[in-house]
Order: sequence, then structure tokens, then C-alpha cells
Amino acid sequence: MTAESLDVFLALAEDMADAAGAIVRGHFRQPVAVDDKPDLTPVTVADREAEAVMRRMIAARFPDHGIVGEEGGAESAGASHVWVLDPVDGTKRFITGNPLFGTLIALLRDGEPILGVIDMPILGERWCGAAGQATRFTSAAGTATARVRACPRLADATLYATSPHMFEGPDQAAFERVRRAVKVPLYGSECYGYGLLASGYNDLTIEADMAPYDYLAQVPVILGAGGSMTDWAGAPLRLGSGHRVLAAGDPACHAAALRLLQGD
Amino acid sequence: MTAESLDVFLALAEDMADAAGAIVRGHFRQPVAVDDKPDLTPVTVADREAEAVMRRMIAARFPDHGIVGEEGGAESAGASHVWVLDPVDGTKRFITGNPLFGTLIALLRDGEPILGVIDMPILGERWCGAAGQATRFTSAAGTATARVRACPRLADATLYATSPHMFEGPDQAAFERVRRAVKVPLYGSECYGYGLLASGYNDLTIEADMAPYDYLAQVPVILGAGGSMTDWAGAPLRLGSGHRVLAAGDPACHAAALRLLQGD
Repeated sequence: MTAESLDVFLALAEDMADAAGAIVRGHFRQPVAVDDKPDLTPVTVADREAEAVMRRMIAARFPDHGIVGEEGGAESAGASHVWVLDPVDGTKRFITGNPLFGTLIALLRDGEPILGVIDMPILGERWCGAAGQATRFTSAAGTATARVRACPRLADATLYATSPHMFEGPDQAAFERVRRAVKVPLYGSECYGYGLLASGYNDLTIEADMAPYDYLAQVPVILGAGGSMTDWAGAPLRLGSGHRVLAAGDPACHAAALRLLQGD
Repeated sequence: MTAESLDVFLALAEDMADAAGAIVRGHFRQPVAVDDKPDLTPVTVADREAEAVMRRMIAARFPDHGIVGEEGGAESAGASHVWVLDPVDGTKRFITGNPLFGTLIALLRDGEPILGVIDMPILGERWCGAAGQATRFTSAAGTATARVRACPRLADATLYATSPHMFEGPDQAAFERVRRAVKVPLYGSECYGYGLLASGYNDLTIEADMAPYDYLAQVPVILGAGGSMTDWAGAPLRLGSGHRVLAAGDPACHAAALRLLQGD
């Protein structure tokens, strides 16, 4: 794959985020029917319509690409290029009229996430990451490079997670070890905690009970900003990874958190 | 006090929120020195400057009014009219570049909160409540009346709190009883959880480890939107109230949460 084709994919991903965002904004704070899926997570017409439009855009341009989406399931997931979509990451927050939810778009090549977009449709903020490129942050103020900050010591670190109730059984004790070691633990982040990390405002994001569409888009964003993002064993994140993720701006902070998660 | 003087106070409170917001926006996502106060909570130049400008505005118009502020302490707290100020509610979130923090302004008359403003300087959203008036919500889309929604059953309720770590000892068990009884518990709300409640997007907000400047502004906003807001004994909130608060949109939901908090 050439850098040129990566730029073509990135342009499509940004067009997809624009289209999904327009749909999601139209449903925000409007009466929407909330259905509970079999796993008891909620889904709305905003999730379904936003994913459907993104799927149509991919199929029109790259009919041989695979797609895995939170709402529409998997199509050609064995293709060399596979898009992974979460139209509304943070549906529970979306339903409560809270703007801290995002649209997540990842592209995998031979399993590796090479492109990722975190789009915040209400806040008007977007992080774009692509293999071999510096992560870009776009807001009303314009577009700039996003870069993690140094924070080698856990005792100085800020930590974001969406909720402590993501962690079950041994995961809960593992998270608690890190939570008690950092300076400031904060909750309620959804995908935004990864964006803030890429921009150097947050040091650690640790989550569990995640599906691949909840975290694959963040990988190129974090790596392209100079950070680290793995599972709790320190392995790279792929479609077949488990449900636990660890992102850090500073590699020393990542290593220290990993040791605590693993019980040291 | 006439309705006319209440409107004069409300106009001043909105001017104060405008002035504080301009200062806070200027420091958002800029390198700011963070000092730890004796209670280990952080404070920045944004907190200090925003409170100072609000204090000057009150002193210039109503020199006989008292002021209690998070950063500047108490002046004439025994006056018949006392302003209660939190320039940045959610300083930890502000420091991480997260827009979910707010400026809180309350006015007490003979101890009773008769006016309250919740202002979100980055989101451009504001809730204004005043005794005997319907709560107003202002955003880029304009100004409209805010009204709570019906939700009589805890099992259908959304619950917001800033963090589960606000609750210590018996408070933790009390909160857990409610948390397990609701449909959707969410964290990371700061003052925004009360605004979303006043606008009918959230059903319950339960917090502890709060100071009066953390919650008094919310009381007129919630009451003026048709909701209920008390301490965990069901008593009205005043400057001398404790650190625990319970807000609900539906009185039946408030009563049910109160019973669980009290151990039934």
C-alpha cells in the first residue's frame, strides 16, 4: 500500500465521519426510541442510520473491503482491508443529551489498524491517525498536530475510564491497583479519554468490557501521537484481541501501569 | 423582595457568568500552573481570576451583599443576601482539557437559594433558575424553558454522579443501593448532571463530599424545572447543609432514592 492510497482511505473516513455526524446531530436531544439489544446495551435510530450510511459509502468506493460494525455485524471480515465502525460510542451518554460521545472509524490492513478516526459530532472535534503519519486534531480553531505529553511516573498521572463498573472479578482488582497509584482518576470519558491523551491532556486510559469496534480506531490515533496502546498483556490490538485495553502517552507510564495490571 | 429585584439579581448573575466564562475560556487547554490546595484539590489561575472578577461585580453593585466563594472564602456571610460562587466546578476535568466543567452562581436570601446559574463556558450552555420562575436553558439554539421528565420508577431511571469515589464508608453502601436499583448509572457529570436533569434528559443525580458552593446554584435550577433537590435526609439545602445531595426530576423517584439512601 502506498502513502497515496492511505490518504485516499483517510479522505473517505473523514467523509464518513461527516455523514455520520450529520445524522447523529439530527437525533441529539430529540425524542428517540431506545431499544435494548440482547446484551442489554441500548441502540437508537441514530446508531443504525449512521452506521448504514457509512457502510454504503464504503461499498460504493471499495466493494471488496470488509466491514465490521457494532450494529450491522460483519461482512467479508476476512478481506485484506476491513473497516471497523462504531457509529455512536457512548450511546447511553447520547441518550441523556450529553455531548461526550463519538463516532469511531478504523481501517485494518491484514489485521493491523492502519487508520483511525475519533469524531465528536456535537463538540466539533476530530482526531485522525494513520500509520506513519503524525496524528491530526481538528476543531473550530483549525487543524494541528496532536502529541502526547511526558509523564513517566504513575504518581503524577491523570487516568480516565468510562466507568469503574467495566471491570469485573480480577479485572476490578487490577484496575484498582492502578487507580490508587495515579494522581487523578476521572470517569465518564467514553472515546474522548483517548483523544485527550493523544493531545497531551491525559496520561492513561484503561478500560475493559470493550468490543474491537470500541477501541481499534483509537490505536492509530494514539500511536501517531507518540503514545502506546495495547491489551493488558502488552500485545498489539487486533480484531481478535480481548476486551481489555491500556493506552498511555508516556512509554514509562504504560510500562508501570502494565506491571500493576498484571499483578506486580 | 419584589420579582423586579430578582430580575435585577438574575441579570447580574448572567453578566457574572459571561465575565467568568471569558476568563475560563482564555485559559482552557493552555499551559496553566496547577496548585494543590490544603485539601489536595487543584486550583488554577482560571479559578482565581474568574472568582475575583465575579466578586468585584457583586461589590460594585451590591456592597452590602455577602459572598462565599470556593477560592476567596467568606465575606459578610451573615448578610441577608449572600452570593455563593464556584468559578470552575470540575477543575480536574478543566485541567485535562475536558469541556464538562461549569461555573456555578447562587444567591441566597435569608439562607434560602433563590437564584442559581449553571454555566458551561466551553459548551455554550446555561441554565438559570429563580424562585417562582420557570428555569431557562440557553444554548446556541436560543433560550427555552427547561422541564424535568416523568420517571416514577427507579428501575427506569438514569443516574449521574461525578465519581463513585465521592462516597466514603456508609455513604458508599447507600449509593450502591441506589446505583444497583437504577437502569443506567453514569459517571463524570460534575454540575452538568443537574442541568441535564432540569432539561429532562436525566432522572437522578446523587453526590457526596460536596461543599455548599458545589450544589447551591443547582437548587433553584432544579426546583424551577419541576424537580426535587435535598440532602440525604430529605431536608432543603442551605449554606449549613452537609456534603450529601440528591436531585430528581420525578418526586416519586426522589422519594424512592431517598428510602434506599436511608437504608430501607
